[in-house]
Amino acid sequence: MLSDVFRRKGEPIIQSLMDTDFYKFTMGQLICSKHPDVRVRFGFTNRMADLVQLGRIIPEGRLREELDHVRTLRFTRSELHYLRGTNEYQERMFREPYLEHLGALQMPEYDLEYLPDGNIRLEFDGKWSEDSYWEIPALEILNELRSEALLASMTHFERDARYAEGVRRLMEKVRSLRDYLGLTFIEFGSRRRWSRVWQRYVLNVLMNELPDQLIGTSNAVLAMEFGLLPSGTSAHELPMVYAALAAEATDFDDEAVRQSQQQMLDDWWELYGWGLSIALPDTYGSDAFFRAGGTFGEERLRTWKGSRPDSGDVIEYGEKRITEYRAIGVDPRAKMFLPSDGLEVPKMIALWQRFGLRIKTSFGWGTNASNDLGIKAISMVIKAIMANGRHTVKLSDNLAKAMGPPEEIHRYRRAFGYDSDFREECTY
Amino acid sequence: MLSDVFRRKGEPIIQSLMDTDFYKFTMGQLICSKHPDVRVRFGFTNRMADLVQLGRIIPEGRLREELDHVRTLRFTRSELHYLRGTNEYQERMFREPYLEHLGALQMPEYDLEYLPDGNIRLEFDGKWSEDSYWEIPALEILNELRSEALLASMTHFERDARYAEGVRRLMEKVRSLRDYLGLTFIEFGSRRRWSRVWQRYVLNVLMNELPDQLIGTSNAVLAMEFGLLPSGTSAHELPMVYAALAAEATDFDDEAVRQSQQQMLDDWWELYGWGLSIALPDTYGSDAFFRAGGTFGEERLRTWKGSRPDSGDVIEYGEKRITEYRAIGVDPRAKMFLPSDGLEVPKMIALWQRFGLRIKTSFGWGTNASNDLGIKAISMVIKAIMANGRHTVKLSDNLAKAMGPPEEIHRYRRAFGYDSDFREECTY
Repeated sequence: MLSDVFRRKGEPIIQSLMDTDFYKFTMGQLICSKHPDVRVRFGFTNRMADLVQLGRIIPEGRLREELDHVRTLRFTRSELHYLRGTNEYQERMFREPYLEHLGALQMPEYDLEYLPDGNIRLEFDGKWSEDSYWEIPALEILNELRSEALLASMTHFERDARYAEGVRRLMEKVRSLRDYLGLTFIEFGSRRRWSRVWQRYVLNVLMNELPDQLIGTSNAVLAMEFGLLPSGTSAHELPMVYAALAAEATDFDDEAVRQSQQQMLDDWWELYGWGLSIALPDTYGSDAFFRAGGTFGEERLRTWKGSRPDSGDVIEYGEKRITEYRAIGVDPRAKMFLPSDGLEVPKMIALWQRFGLRIKTSFGWGTNASNDLGIKAISMVIKAIMANGRHTVKLSDNLAKAMGPPEEIHRYRRAFGYDSDFREECTY
Repeated sequence: MLSDVFRRKGEPIIQSLMDTDFYKFTMGQLICSKHPDVRVRFGFTNRMADLVQLGRIIPEGRLREELDHVRTLRFTRSELHYLRGTNEYQERMFREPYLEHLGALQMPEYDLEYLPDGNIRLEFDGKWSEDSYWEIPALEILNELRSEALLASMTHFERDARYAEGVRRLMEKVRSLRDYLGLTFIEFGSRRRWSRVWQRYVLNVLMNELPDQLIGTSNAVLAMEFGLLPSGTSAHELPMVYAALAAEATDFDDEAVRQSQQQMLDDWWELYGWGLSIALPDTYGSDAFFRAGGTFGEERLRTWKGSRPDSGDVIEYGEKRITEYRAIGVDPRAKMFLPSDGLEVPKMIALWQRFGLRIKTSFGWGTNASNDLGIKAISMVIKAIMANGRHTVKLSDNLAKAMGPPEEIHRYRRAFGYDSDFREECTY
């Protein structure tokens, strides 16, 4: 049957510790070198818990089996060769102490509870330098076990029809994108993929059908397998943990919390320089980040490669950046603009048409690439929720994505002068 | 059917430019950095041409098809990552200029002729820094096309029986080797393997069955796939070309030719230091190499890691080295002794029993590992035969392996004081 092509054949979902996003390694090295003893708790959130109770869908035994399997994995010699040999952003980007850290890594324990309301509590509490690596494989497992449950309730022919629909949709996207030759994108879909096998299939199709438009993938093991550019820089966990550590150390001194964000950018630049200097500005509001005297500052606006908006109104964001660059005499066409929030093909095309010739535009294309068989994907995340015992906070440019206890959110809004109330449903 | 497991399914024999011996890269970097403009002609020799005329067995069209396919291959991004990340012998062993050279490499043209006597003339004439890479893939193709021809003449059941015999023999070897826990070896069988799929199968069995005894493989793509240590240092082409260049430049000045061998060792040490300092001493006779005032000299005897005998009487060789090390106050147990000439399991065991506790002994196990289905393998080689227009010469410790025109062989014997007449049939 058609669907058998995509069937996992009794193998575990996660087969390599490289089956994760490349940014876990770029961040991981910073964490390992600058914050080896910080303790961070990561927690799972299903943003659609009202609609879908995963605990009623995914059998606990299956989930434990897959998570346990990840704990048996180790980085192989060849995977460490691959990382050591990564030089697209900077010569010898991953240094020996970090590679030794990875070589010795066993994924730490997880804390899983099936709650009476049908939801799942899944947390990872330990050294930041170790439990950070759970984010992506745990999401990959949760998503694939959901797909597994959906498929189990179908007849053989319904499964075929489902995959046929996925192929049809992919073909439509390929056809649309092909008309916009300069439109390039990076495949960002690991965390919410339908399944490992499906993501691999999609990526392979994109490679072959849009060879000049697909410029890389965030998935390290697929980049390795297909010889694609491994892509990614950093995530919200960095600014969130930096801020929480400053808050904890100073009993929330506003200036210290703001200062922590500059420190994070300095640490990043110290480690990677220009090569990975793509800012992720929305953690405490992109306006606060970019405003004069704000976190980023004019000097970084000049020197950094660009930025990646990940929430809020991306058109407004793009227009603001172009205006700011011009205001300081920088040609925006030399700067990167990498939207990556809930993108679908028509939106990418619209953004490309608007911004393509005005700023160096490229896209991080995620869930809509890797999980579109016509069944709505679930918006789920695993985020740093505590750092050295203090709650972390994320505001983002969309308050529907905000995280943290209300009183702490209030403090962060004050510290960063965040006065927007923009709120929009998370589609992915 | 059983044999279908081992059947190549319409794919080309060579699927990656990494499907070659690791030593092509260690030598390749030396060639690329020190001798970028030297021209070398490589030529194929079937040492059993009296018994087996390959031109009568292998269809010319098939051979051309497979050789042509190799010319379509390029090093992939991931393969270059892997090489860049190789650090088992030395940090950052392969440097950027060399990796760029590989990144741009297309295999040069070949010169193939089917001769009236049923033999094949296959030569590669061009820049040493390019045609050197033909050695292993061309041998792999010739061997596999011979296997293909043999299989084509069998019934389905005969093929099953043939592979069953291969498995049975492998199992016997594994059982024998398992009794000698300290006996370690490197899989060296690429060049004369039965087939790509069979070598991969054998290596996988050895990995799983003898995990503490298999310490690596010479095959770069299999080392990469299985996370094994990529192993190898250098081959006769280095001393042969160095000597020929000196002979050409000085109209064969004995001292200059001898001196070229020291230069080669110095260049090697300059590039790789101790990490790859395993001498291959038999090109112009191991006795001349090791004698007082000879090529190697007492200083290198002290500093280099060890040596790899590749012809002649290996027991005599081992005893001589032990005596020499002791004579200068060096404990032979700190020095490597890596026999690699036509080894079979009983011979490895006998050598291990004799030398295992006296000198750091390990084995390069080749054809008998990768091509033993009960059909005799053919002793074939591809060697450098001309360098900048001058014939190269190899004497080796077994004159049955000597190469070059008689008058030139005579000069080399004189220059190196080679007075042995030892001659023994090449079994592999």
